[in-house]
Amino acid sequence: MTLAIADTKLDLRLLKIDLLAIGQEARKAARALALAPTEQKNAALFAAAAALRARTDDILRTNAEDRDAARASGRPESFIDRLTLTPARVEAMAKGLEDVAALADPVGETIAAWERPNGLKISRVRVPLGVIGMIYESRPNVTADAGALALKAGNAVILRGGSETIASNRAIHACLAEGLRAAGLPETAIQLIGTTDRAAVGLLLEGLDGAVDVIVPRGGKSLVERVQKEARVPVFAHLEGICHVYVDKAADAEKARAIVLNAKLRRTGVCGSAETLLVDEAAADRLLAPLVIALLDAGCEVRGDAATCAVDARVVPATEQDWATEYLDAIISAKVVPGVAGAIAHIERYGSHHTDSIVTEDAATAETFLAEVDSAIVLHNASTQFADGGEFGMGAEIGIATGRFHARGPVGVEQLTTFKYVVRGDGQTRPV
Amino acid sequence: MTLAIADTKLDLRLLKIDLLAIGQEARKAARALALAPTEQKNAALFAAAAALRARTDDILRTNAEDRDAARASGRPESFIDRLTLTPARVEAMAKGLEDVAALADPVGETIAAWERPNGLKISRVRVPLGVIGMIYESRPNVTADAGALALKAGNAVILRGGSETIASNRAIHACLAEGLRAAGLPETAIQLIGTTDRAAVGLLLEGLDGAVDVIVPRGGKSLVERVQKEARVPVFAHLEGICHVYVDKAADAEKARAIVLNAKLRRTGVCGSAETLLVDEAAADRLLAPLVIALLDAGCEVRGDAATCAVDARVVPATEQDWATEYLDAIISAKVVPGVAGAIAHIERYGSHHTDSIVTEDAATAETFLAEVDSAIVLHNASTQFADGGEFGMGAEIGIATGRFHARGPVGVEQLTTFKYVVRGDGQTRPV
Repeated sequence: MTLAIADTKLDLRLLKIDLLAIGQEARKAARALALAPTEQKNAALFAAAAALRARTDDILRTNAEDRDAARASGRPESFIDRLTLTPARVEAMAKGLEDVAALADPVGETIAAWERPNGLKISRVRVPLGVIGMIYESRPNVTADAGALALKAGNAVILRGGSETIASNRAIHACLAEGLRAAGLPETAIQLIGTTDRAAVGLLLEGLDGAVDVIVPRGGKSLVERVQKEARVPVFAHLEGICHVYVDKAADAEKARAIVLNAKLRRTGVCGSAETLLVDEAAADRLLAPLVIALLDAGCEVRGDAATCAVDARVVPATEQDWATEYLDAIISAKVVPGVAGAIAHIERYGSHHTDSIVTEDAATAETFLAEVDSAIVLHNASTQFADGGEFGMGAEIGIATGRFHARGPVGVEQLTTFKYVVRGDGQTRPV
Repeated sequence: MTLAIADTKLDLRLLKIDLLAIGQEARKAARALALAPTEQKNAALFAAAAALRARTDDILRTNAEDRDAARASGRPESFIDRLTLTPARVEAMAKGLEDVAALADPVGETIAAWERPNGLKISRVRVPLGVIGMIYESRPNVTADAGALALKAGNAVILRGGSETIASNRAIHACLAEGLRAAGLPETAIQLIGTTDRAAVGLLLEGLDGAVDVIVPRGGKSLVERVQKEARVPVFAHLEGICHVYVDKAADAEKARAIVLNAKLRRTGVCGSAETLLVDEAAADRLLAPLVIALLDAGCEVRGDAATCAVDARVVPATEQDWATEYLDAIISAKVVPGVAGAIAHIERYGSHHTDSIVTEDAATAETFLAEVDSAIVLHNASTQFADGGEFGMGAEIGIATGRFHARGPVGVEQLTTFKYVVRGDGQTRPV
């Protein structure tokens, strides 16, 4: 027993030494990446895409091993599906790398520039964030996506994928390393933590002695919760997307129907999916029943307040817990509220500051909602499912953040940069 | 003994209840502040300035009590000076409030706007950060400065000043509260923690159950160190300003002299003061001796490498520790380096990523320095003492940040805001 404990401590110490070395390599690579010209970063992305295509058979064979192991350990089919690669999925990864290469390089961009009365020329210039720690679960394509976005924004990245896809992640990572090598960039710009030891996540969250600038978690609520609780460095994440659609008395009924159905049902497992429908009491007679019946007829479970239950026998009574639940499924909670003020009060109480939408033809009411709802994304007459970097025109995204700092909403290449002030003078000194 | 422990625990529990209530009030006030029009916020600032002027005698009397107590407890004169208010200092505070009123209101500003092919109109709009926790030491004017900046940017603020100035802070805070009341804004928008219990700082750093969005410490290194170590919420701060001036072989000797003297000696106690002089070995013969002698003659102690020691008998040999020391005094370390690459390597190794300057007439060398030095502020041919929100044209600042997130460099009203995405549509739904 005593020996076993000693061994565990020794293992942890050795793991820590390994990870600190990874952190130091990442920090060194980040210096090189920060100064790398756009063409060189793009060359690495194109070469990595070519490597992914050339090694598709290898990658699929490796992925089949991961899949067999996951099946043998009794993982459910939905889990197996998430980790499964197909020729089409590998091609999508390769294409994704090329798409990131096609994005504008944010590094070096002058965000603002002004001149002072004393002749000093001040500019704010975009620079990379530094080293990104990426912690994700079962989808192996995150290895390629996150590596590419970090690289394009001039950052080094340390990847820590789920243990069930470790072999697939290694095979994909080898292609990224080949791309970096081909372009003459340090391979350590994209490192994959090779061990499945769960203690590695804890060490990464501590920041590896200052080597990690930001953590981006990508996975279920329990992962994000752990990361937000334990991380000693900034985190770009959202814990939940409890998104609302509020249908105002001045709503166009047809727009409301289309938006509510799309917001809830286009995909139910994404963070921008609506979880609660709020209907203005002043027009509940006209709007509530058609919306609820359309949802029910589309196969969605509706959990409602008394007014909603009265619409149709298929509606289930909602409990207090329902208003605070992200179903990630074909289930919606529904409630009648006293106008836009009631909707705002409900959203502030139960929402997660992610994405919320109002449907109305009344411009003033829309502006009240847009101004007063304190969420990363607020929409007027549009589906909450637009909460996505691609749909925002930012290209690929590494995630969506609901924090109030730095990155808020979709996190694309631009959000993976910071800035510095560059001041050009001609001998100016500061008066006393 | 047992009883004493029980009492301490009870006290801590009561303190926690008090502080959580302060946090909840701040959160409520922040909702109101976020929506307050510019004129109302400015009215509060003007009314507070008037109150400061009207109550100057009271404030000075109270401050004298703080001062007597500090003297009685054996505090040094430099400390007493920092906490001392005079009629001129009170007037400067009042004027400071009016200056903040004159700044542009950042809230509601559209930072960027674009339209998507599907007709969605996306804009990024500035919104307040929320609730700011301000922890500061002996200067009572921070009470007014921080309160005003937070208010102007639409935030609520919880102030925790040094225990030695608690009476002065209370008197100043009463004027701010009077201003808020006169303008019809919630007095709880600016709250002062009334207890001198040090445990209050710890509770504030934990974030008061999510009520605090950011902590801004203002004080010595040990305070900032504690805050950075213990805070469970984001922090806007810099730990040290180890700022460098690099004099390149292509430097104009007269500019170099003026900049070095100003960067070191204009004020030695500010974070933008230079701590290390680096001179290009290719022109050390021409540049080193005049710079070192000018510093010595101006009363500055110089701690140098061998080459610098050879210049003048008054130069003290530098130790390894000197390169990593923020003197905040009339002391400078000095060293000959192999060109701009050597300067960059030295700064990356020993610097604090705050503010660094190059003096050269060679534009290409300047651009290399500006691009490769990874600091919040990099300057060409200008004094490091320009590291200041006022000198940047931002108006007042609440501090200077060296973190890579959100606020970097001077933290003014604009940096006390975040943004949200406002999306305006006409019924758009997202295709599968």
